[in-house]
Amino acid sequence: MLVEKTVQGFTEELASESPAPGGGSVAALAGSIAASLVSMVSNLTVGKEKYQEYEDELKEVLEEAQGLRKKLLQLVDDDTDAFNRVMAAFKMPKETDEDKRIRSQAIQKAFVGAAELPLGVAKCCLQAMKLSEKVIDNGNPNAASDAGVSVLMAGAGAKAAALNVEINLGAIKDEAKKKELKESLDGVMQAIGELEKKLLGKVKEKIN
Amino acid sequence: MLVEKTVQGFTEELASESPAPGGGSVAALAGSIAASLVSMVSNLTVGKEKYQEYEDELKEVLEEAQGLRKKLLQLVDDDTDAFNRVMAAFKMPKETDEDKRIRSQAIQKAFVGAAELPLGVAKCCLQAMKLSEKVIDNGNPNAASDAGVSVLMAGAGAKAAALNVEINLGAIKDEAKKKELKESLDGVMQAIGELEKKLLGKVKEKIN
Repeated sequence: MLVEKTVQGFTEELASESPAPGGGSVAALAGSIAASLVSMVSNLTVGKEKYQEYEDELKEVLEEAQGLRKKLLQLVDDDTDAFNRVMAAFKMPKETDEDKRIRSQAIQKAFVGAAELPLGVAKCCLQAMKLSEKVIDNGNPNAASDAGVSVLMAGAGAKAAALNVEINLGAIKDEAKKKELKESLDGVMQAIGELEKKLLGKVKEKIN
Repeated sequence: MLVEKTVQGFTEELASESPAPGGGSVAALAGSIAASLVSMVSNLTVGKEKYQEYEDELKEVLEEAQGLRKKLLQLVDDDTDAFNRVMAAFKMPKETDEDKRIRSQAIQKAFVGAAELPLGVAKCCLQAMKLSEKVIDNGNPNAASDAGVSVLMAGAGAKAAALNVEINLGAIKDEAKKKELKESLDGVMQAIGELEKKLLGKVKEKIN
């Protein structure tokens, strides 16, 4: 598994001439890092008398963030698997008409999977960013820059995922499916754009 | 070293109640991932007859990107060290006036170091983004989304580094030093903002 490599080894694998892992796995990793920073700020807040008022809320945030951190780590590997399924479909036999029909169906199915996966990553990044808001508002203010970095990483993860949805949408022939995925992506990305702007404004106020 | 942990272990360490590693190390990691993706796109371009025209240029980009990837990985650990030096300075004895004077100087020195370090990370992220432009323009277009993700990660890394410069600037009393660092940061971040916007526009054109 990719996430069992060292951080250094992961960057080496990424930098290599193999097309996978690539930007799709990076999107999921950025989201997982965002969730990790939300956990950290929650951990630096709960159990401290000064922030007792928000104890219960931040315990819930912590639990949700830990779940997202793990889910997004899984998606680092899943994205590379989805990409590899596209490559495998292209390598299917294409000698007879029946071969060609089956291969073409498999390619289309693989592209839909490779578009749906980063769409799921973008949705998880939006969830992570919503949790960032809670630690910005009620978390330990000494960690305000860490909360801000969680917003930036969730935003970059979602935008990176969106590029990966879009590049795969271009290969999908089922227009209804394509429209459905595109509309879902647009909704998530609009929410990401608005929330990121709002939260970075809040972080700047806390830091300055 | 942090970068010798597994990716999964790194996120666990990040998520823990320890304030280091935090957002500063994440900024450097995001930059290193950006440089890795530039390397990958270069690797998917060089040696292919179709892109022979850009062979020499992209070999240079590859070498520079590999250097940046490694330098930024080193900065992942260096940032955590810089943060720990601030914490260590605060723990120095403060019994006598002489103690207090020495401690206060050490704290100030540590804060300057903790601001200079992420400023260096932001500069490296700008270099990585400049390399992204070369792979967007002349790299294998099949990897256009990966080149786009490198822009997003370099941008997020620089913005994350900037938050870490700013939070430390707030603690620096030497006004001349503070002004110098702030001006340098502003220059880097203006360049990042303009370049990111331009490059993401180019990527969208390639993908759609």
